[in-house]
Amino acid sequence: MKHPPHLAIVGATGAVGMEILRVLERRNFPVGNLTLLASPRSAGKTLEFRGNTYPVKTLAIDAFTGVDIALFSAGASITREFAPAAIASGSIVVDNSSAHRMDAAVPLVIPEVNAAAALTHHGLIANPNCTTAVSLMAIAPLHRAFGVKTIVASSYQAVSGTGARAITELEDQVKAWQTGAHIAPEIYPHPIAFNLIPRIDAMADNGYTKEEMKFQNETRKILEAPGIRASITCVRVPVFRAHSVACTVQCERPVTVASAREVWAGAAGLQVRDEPASDQYPMPLHAAGMDDCLVGRARMDLALENAITFWISGDQLLKGAALNAVQIAELLL
Amino acid sequence: MKHPPHLAIVGATGAVGMEILRVLERRNFPVGNLTLLASPRSAGKTLEFRGNTYPVKTLAIDAFTGVDIALFSAGASITREFAPAAIASGSIVVDNSSAHRMDAAVPLVIPEVNAAAALTHHGLIANPNCTTAVSLMAIAPLHRAFGVKTIVASSYQAVSGTGARAITELEDQVKAWQTGAHIAPEIYPHPIAFNLIPRIDAMADNGYTKEEMKFQNETRKILEAPGIRASITCVRVPVFRAHSVACTVQCERPVTVASAREVWAGAAGLQVRDEPASDQYPMPLHAAGMDDCLVGRARMDLALENAITFWISGDQLLKGAALNAVQIAELLL
Repeated sequence: MKHPPHLAIVGATGAVGMEILRVLERRNFPVGNLTLLASPRSAGKTLEFRGNTYPVKTLAIDAFTGVDIALFSAGASITREFAPAAIASGSIVVDNSSAHRMDAAVPLVIPEVNAAAALTHHGLIANPNCTTAVSLMAIAPLHRAFGVKTIVASSYQAVSGTGARAITELEDQVKAWQTGAHIAPEIYPHPIAFNLIPRIDAMADNGYTKEEMKFQNETRKILEAPGIRASITCVRVPVFRAHSVACTVQCERPVTVASAREVWAGAAGLQVRDEPASDQYPMPLHAAGMDDCLVGRARMDLALENAITFWISGDQLLKGAALNAVQIAELLL
Repeated sequence: MKHPPHLAIVGATGAVGMEILRVLERRNFPVGNLTLLASPRSAGKTLEFRGNTYPVKTLAIDAFTGVDIALFSAGASITREFAPAAIASGSIVVDNSSAHRMDAAVPLVIPEVNAAAALTHHGLIANPNCTTAVSLMAIAPLHRAFGVKTIVASSYQAVSGTGARAITELEDQVKAWQTGAHIAPEIYPHPIAFNLIPRIDAMADNGYTKEEMKFQNETRKILEAPGIRASITCVRVPVFRAHSVACTVQCERPVTVASAREVWAGAAGLQVRDEPASDQYPMPLHAAGMDDCLVGRARMDLALENAITFWISGDQLLKGAALNAVQIAELLL
């Protein structure tokens, strides 16, 4: 790999792509050439990076010549269509989509959790689902210390997880509420302003959504713990940015609130905010824009034996997507 | 008791009090005299009921002379101060506060679940916590059919649960977001617009909030099942009206999705909305203003044995408060 590497960003004009540019700047990631790729709709646009202006080019299979690392954030079908060409050109692909996360030959990586797995790649490294990534920032340290066996969770997912157009949709619906105008939802099947939508992604055949199945499947793969049983209800909420998850985690070895807080305090990328009596707890309002995830409201579960219940908030666009992708790219340098 | 009875509403100008008037009208509840009581702040106001205008009087211990049924919705401290006077005057108190819910001599009633308990009263009948009431509309039928032993839940609670001033606070914060103005939160400790607040009510000494403890304690009392273990994370969300709860319910006897839907279909006050592939599921948008609660997203839990996971939405001001109180009053006629 050249140093500094030639980087490509696929889906550069999307919510995650734009965030990747800011994360690269902020972390002083070494960038030689920078190729910004997007759909024909975005052709002709330009984006700023480190004070220079870069054109957005139309994504094509011959766009990866000389590219060392290609960060894909344009959905599973774009990855399936274009990642093979990138890999054939010698690029290493860091993919934010779900296309190859569960392929046995593809490492699925959260750098704070399983960085070593990244180095086993065959040209493609997958970035986990956003809710899974945020949740595992608190669950993985518990697993290392106490052996996680069962997880029951509920998510509160921001519209940023759907992309830039969903953010605009929430904004527009709130403005319409103000004026009394009626606007039909376009991105979501129902209004999201002042509402909750308890379905994210397509339905699987067991009554769970694919988003909910990702939580169990990806957790097992990342923690290398195929016996973990994990159930989640994934819900879209009228929050712009940062996902939150209420988690109940049952452990194999004895766990206490104090011991959980201790392992969290020593975990990279995680901050404990747990003084609820003085209203210190994780909230999307605080997690938005933060690299670290926030964990709090820890207490022994009343329903399950040797289980701890807690609440985590993390920026979906950062730990759930752009930051994690750039951290993976850093492992490759 | 006279027929039609003399009714008093304590907290008549609050969000629940106003809703009680509408529910009484809609259900053709027989009302002889109507006494509207509130704090001195509301004295001089008038309210409409069945086309007539009624003055709001200042709550005082001598205000209950001749009152047959007094519907209290003004918080626990008001109940503690004034309910004894009402009972001494011969009124039967239906109390929406938490003041006496767990008193052994006080029935805690959801008419669809344990109507018979209401008739054992000694002058006061308690209305359950709103999140508990909405959740039990789906959990109680499961308990009767399959024997519930464990509940793990997360709530998504609308601001209407806090009262009329919280509804205004969310409205004002959204308007301020539009104009870029900064307004300090007053009712909640943090902004609620586009945010989540994972603490409702004061902290108990085990790391749970009192709201969360009500869920276990009141569930046990209403279902007469002291062995049920129930854990919940209660979260305030930027929704105006109608609470939602993600529930995982483990049963003693074999349960399936089909058998759960069957018992729900036969349960009064509950509607099954469970075709997620065509985006039919409970949402606050639909539950707001409805007497019935909505249940859906039913599937076998992946984490716990013989458990079913589902999602319920119900109007906090109706089933969670005003409707339930009026239904209890109907049992007294």
